[in-house]
Amino acid sequence: MEKLKVQTITKRYGRKVILDAVSFELQPAKIYGLLGRNGAGKSTLLNIITNRIFANQGAVMLGEQNVNNNQASLGQFYLMSEAELNLKHTKIKDLFSGAELAYGNFDFENARRMLTAFKISEDQTLAKLSTGLKTAAKLTVALNVNADYIFLDEPTLGLDANHRELFYHELMRTYGERPRTFVISTHLINEVQQLLENVIILDRGKIIVDEPVIDLLAKAYEISGPSNLVDQYTHGLKILTSHNFSRIKTVTVVEKLAEQRTLPDQVKVDHLDLQKTFTALTDGGNEGE
Amino acid sequence: MEKLKVQTITKRYGRKVILDAVSFELQPAKIYGLLGRNGAGKSTLLNIITNRIFANQGAVMLGEQNVNNNQASLGQFYLMSEAELNLKHTKIKDLFSGAELAYGNFDFENARRMLTAFKISEDQTLAKLSTGLKTAAKLTVALNVNADYIFLDEPTLGLDANHRELFYHELMRTYGERPRTFVISTHLINEVQQLLENVIILDRGKIIVDEPVIDLLAKAYEISGPSNLVDQYTHGLKILTSHNFSRIKTVTVVEKLAEQRTLPDQVKVDHLDLQKTFTALTDGGNEGE
Repeated sequence: MEKLKVQTITKRYGRKVILDAVSFELQPAKIYGLLGRNGAGKSTLLNIITNRIFANQGAVMLGEQNVNNNQASLGQFYLMSEAELNLKHTKIKDLFSGAELAYGNFDFENARRMLTAFKISEDQTLAKLSTGLKTAAKLTVALNVNADYIFLDEPTLGLDANHRELFYHELMRTYGERPRTFVISTHLINEVQQLLENVIILDRGKIIVDEPVIDLLAKAYEISGPSNLVDQYTHGLKILTSHNFSRIKTVTVVEKLAEQRTLPDQVKVDHLDLQKTFTALTDGGNEGE
Repeated sequence: MEKLKVQTITKRYGRKVILDAVSFELQPAKIYGLLGRNGAGKSTLLNIITNRIFANQGAVMLGEQNVNNNQASLGQFYLMSEAELNLKHTKIKDLFSGAELAYGNFDFENARRMLTAFKISEDQTLAKLSTGLKTAAKLTVALNVNADYIFLDEPTLGLDANHRELFYHELMRTYGERPRTFVISTHLINEVQQLLENVIILDRGKIIVDEPVIDLLAKAYEISGPSNLVDQYTHGLKILTSHNFSRIKTVTVVEKLAEQRTLPDQVKVDHLDLQKTFTALTDGGNEGE
């Protein structure tokens, strides 16, 4: 398996810049989170990588091959997205055959086992399924298709908590049996935190984080205490968010705390989880803008 | 403010029983979670309480009044739901005036502050907003309308993590300033756990849980260890879910563990969070059925 390189991809709609010279690499056999606020450009990026829409500039490379219209390279990519395909009257089993035809070696046995777990019959048509079960059917295809890079855009849309747990479990199971790259774009960040090895955060068309989750979380802090002591302790740091409640101030920072800083007794430093780290980093951006 | 009593509500579509003699009470000024799998009947129940659809049997009472077509009682209820109202070309500010007209005393000032936080203009029409911002606009109406019972059906639909945090924060703020009853129906159970005082779980048309969250969680356990010791320790308990991994067995139970049970050294007992308690209790049901 080869590296996937996204090189200075820019996408504009009219005068609006959706993606602004976005570059990053995906390694084989890793699980990535692609996180961003609504409107940050995540779906556009996934559609460009999988050649469904075109970039104004830049290239997507698999190893040394530009994937643009290169069927051999594109045959390694699978995108599961919210987009309604023109497949309303298609039965689930025909989706399986379609994936077999396009990619070969579809894992029919595991797909049927997953359908049973989701309590869907392979003779049902997509049109007859609720939003949640439609997502479950699409996930069943995505986790059993023979591709090295699998992109899941909002894979939990409409799933209830039980089906989300089942999906996370099935993802880890298939990844364990045949490691390949998964890129998961979701708003349910806390739920996927345990699954992700690396995280890429897109904010207003730019990559602002691209590193292992463990490295990001190691430097993500919430600091709280009496206002003046917190200010003193965080002097020189970039404060991402700040809240006051009575005389207690709580701030977030995402950067290494130099060891020479001395922590006053009344000031408390806690680590942030991934979702809180994400919101601290992206609260400036907004889909409303 | 008076109690709301749901009395043996039954709803059938054709031969399918959606709600099966559902009874419970809502107290004034409390926050409830109404949880259930996809298809469990939650939306149907909320639509019946707010008189949008009719039950085959049973009654909804506010104090001693049957609310069915009783405008004075219905004027105390507000339902925010996923349903698209016929309001595509309505501006947000007209939604505010509509709520003022129907309920009186709409909190325009707080509503405008919330819109600013969501970065929505009150001159925008619903049709122009993304799913997430449409939800944000509807929430802004729901949290500022003058009603004693406010029902929020999937209030986080399409919201990114930042906007979900903002919603939780605004809910607690308005509840603190003017306590009234909120009923929140959502699949994001872990995120709302901290907000809820009481939880009602609907499973295949029946109420299976109706109690304070704290009481439910006090008896929700995950027990794991060597298979034979777990079996011995849990003898006589109702096992809800059971998983084996190598020689370790993990089971969930939701019932008081009698104190005379002696816990073997190798067996570990942990408390479940609300989402895991929910999935353990409802894994038997399924929207696919």
